[in-house]
Amino acid sequence: MKCFMPEELSGYCQKLLTGIGVDPWCAQVTADMLVDADMCGVSSHGVSRMSIYVQRIQRGLVAKENRIQIVEEGPSTLVVDAGNTLGAPSARFTMEACIRKAGETGCCFAAVRNSNHFGTAAYYTRMAAAQGMIGFACTNLTGKIAPHGSAEPFMGTNPFSVAAPSNGAPVVLDMTPSVVALGKLILAQKLGQEIPLGWALDEEGAPTTDPAAGRRGSLLPIGGPKGSGMAVMVEILSGVLSGAGWGPHLHDLYEFDAPQGVGHFMGAIDIGRFIPVDEFKGRVSDMAQEIKQLKRTEGAKEILLPGERSARQAEKSCTEGIELPQSVYEELAELGRPFGYSL
Amino acid sequence: MKCFMPEELSGYCQKLLTGIGVDPWCAQVTADMLVDADMCGVSSHGVSRMSIYVQRIQRGLVAKENRIQIVEEGPSTLVVDAGNTLGAPSARFTMEACIRKAGETGCCFAAVRNSNHFGTAAYYTRMAAAQGMIGFACTNLTGKIAPHGSAEPFMGTNPFSVAAPSNGAPVVLDMTPSVVALGKLILAQKLGQEIPLGWALDEEGAPTTDPAAGRRGSLLPIGGPKGSGMAVMVEILSGVLSGAGWGPHLHDLYEFDAPQGVGHFMGAIDIGRFIPVDEFKGRVSDMAQEIKQLKRTEGAKEILLPGERSARQAEKSCTEGIELPQSVYEELAELGRPFGYSL
Repeated sequence: MKCFMPEELSGYCQKLLTGIGVDPWCAQVTADMLVDADMCGVSSHGVSRMSIYVQRIQRGLVAKENRIQIVEEGPSTLVVDAGNTLGAPSARFTMEACIRKAGETGCCFAAVRNSNHFGTAAYYTRMAAAQGMIGFACTNLTGKIAPHGSAEPFMGTNPFSVAAPSNGAPVVLDMTPSVVALGKLILAQKLGQEIPLGWALDEEGAPTTDPAAGRRGSLLPIGGPKGSGMAVMVEILSGVLSGAGWGPHLHDLYEFDAPQGVGHFMGAIDIGRFIPVDEFKGRVSDMAQEIKQLKRTEGAKEILLPGERSARQAEKSCTEGIELPQSVYEELAELGRPFGYSL
Repeated sequence: MKCFMPEELSGYCQKLLTGIGVDPWCAQVTADMLVDADMCGVSSHGVSRMSIYVQRIQRGLVAKENRIQIVEEGPSTLVVDAGNTLGAPSARFTMEACIRKAGETGCCFAAVRNSNHFGTAAYYTRMAAAQGMIGFACTNLTGKIAPHGSAEPFMGTNPFSVAAPSNGAPVVLDMTPSVVALGKLILAQKLGQEIPLGWALDEEGAPTTDPAAGRRGSLLPIGGPKGSGMAVMVEILSGVLSGAGWGPHLHDLYEFDAPQGVGHFMGAIDIGRFIPVDEFKGRVSDMAQEIKQLKRTEGAKEILLPGERSARQAEKSCTEGIELPQSVYEELAELGRPFGYSL
């Protein structure tokens, strides 16, 4: 384990990205998003992704420039063509525009096409919450989830996030409609462990306890038709409405055949148009307190609100730094070597 | 079983409601919403609810008049005070206003307070889909779902719906974040059956297979923290943002202590601001076709899109009529007797 302060890690990632020719603002936002994920304890979406981002950029599969353009604009809507720019700046630019426009009309929703892996959806919805708004964000990804009743993958793991401010940390839901993320199968495989039935299907569509078979097959949605339906709706919002593609037509972050072509759908709703923001925040905090004081099930140490664990971890990371596993550290350090950057 | 044509059933319910003094438009919308649920095969939300609606109105717990008022209005937002009017007209009025305003600015979201049980969320989102828009609707209800880690109920079964048009029937997700609806516990209890572990907790917060114990205890959310988080977000949107109350502070449809005081959150997003509506519909239909043609799991006869079963059932009901169980028929007939109405 190596420990780094967030600014240090973020500065290094930014330098790496600008070093390979990425637009400075795009580099800054991408580094900030990745380090934010690590700060929040979501290390699967943190700087461990730098290597694949760099590889895709170097192979010309992601634009180095900022090619983000608003192509349609209404009083409360936006269509953004990301022009194959990195996902984080594309989504951040879009959420900033949504917040600005929601300040004028009360809400704004945007569809983004020709984009890339945007990291954690919560990174964008928390921007809205910080401005006294409700934030919404979702993205589609390559097909991994089997629709209910199907033996094959179709919808992406399609995360979506909703965030609302409180007097303390915002309440932030950020979830995929699959029972588990693909990462849990990868981990089980590494550790030589079986996975529980109900996580995945094998290539033939049969329930499996073998993580390798699950990776070749498909992930199962939560609640059967419910999670399946949510994943379909994220495809419709992110892939159909935006003019991007959907599930099986998208390209995987880890394959080098083509730009990903993913779409996002995001928006902001101005709380002050409904109720004074301070009153809203107070009411959310009151509700959160009531929830936290409920009787707990056996073995539960604490009842956590959505996003509470991440917020606590982020606060800790600010003072104590971010611990990187040796393998991630070495990968990052290796990336800097050609440029003479050391971490 | 008794069979009725939708207009016949709807006309009778409307007459019953106006007979006890309900505003004619409110009576019409309520009857239409209930019969629509029966047409769609969602009989738990159909005319079997007439009896409790009538009782609440007669006891003065729901207003007979149309007291729905827009209390705040921005270019793309609305706050509606339903004034304890019936839930269906309150929600329908609001969705109509959202659709109208979304036609002007591209999208509109509304919060509704002082409302009542609004029936099926899909009834409202399909209105938006029929106008070439994406519809969103959710409502909170009395606390039934235990937050993840809690041994007590707090959030309502909080249904939410998203609908999008296609070239055929719209794609309509309408779901509660609990593993099963309370109705499944009631049914198991009636039939003397056990329920599977994972559906409910007993009063002490322990997992139970006894439906009666589950009814006294709480329902479990799908996907643990995921469904729990979704239910919390619906409380925030429907209960906090609207100025209504949340979970434990609301009043139950089947208790006669006070007006329900529930809140809704709903909205419409104009597809034409993003992509030509015909193109959108075609793309949704293309995606649906691709999904339906996937290889099926063993035992699955067909892969259904969200809302597909309901749409098919509704079409069938139009020509073949709606079959009511004898008990529901007798209850309805009984309600008309004092007025000399016969069904």
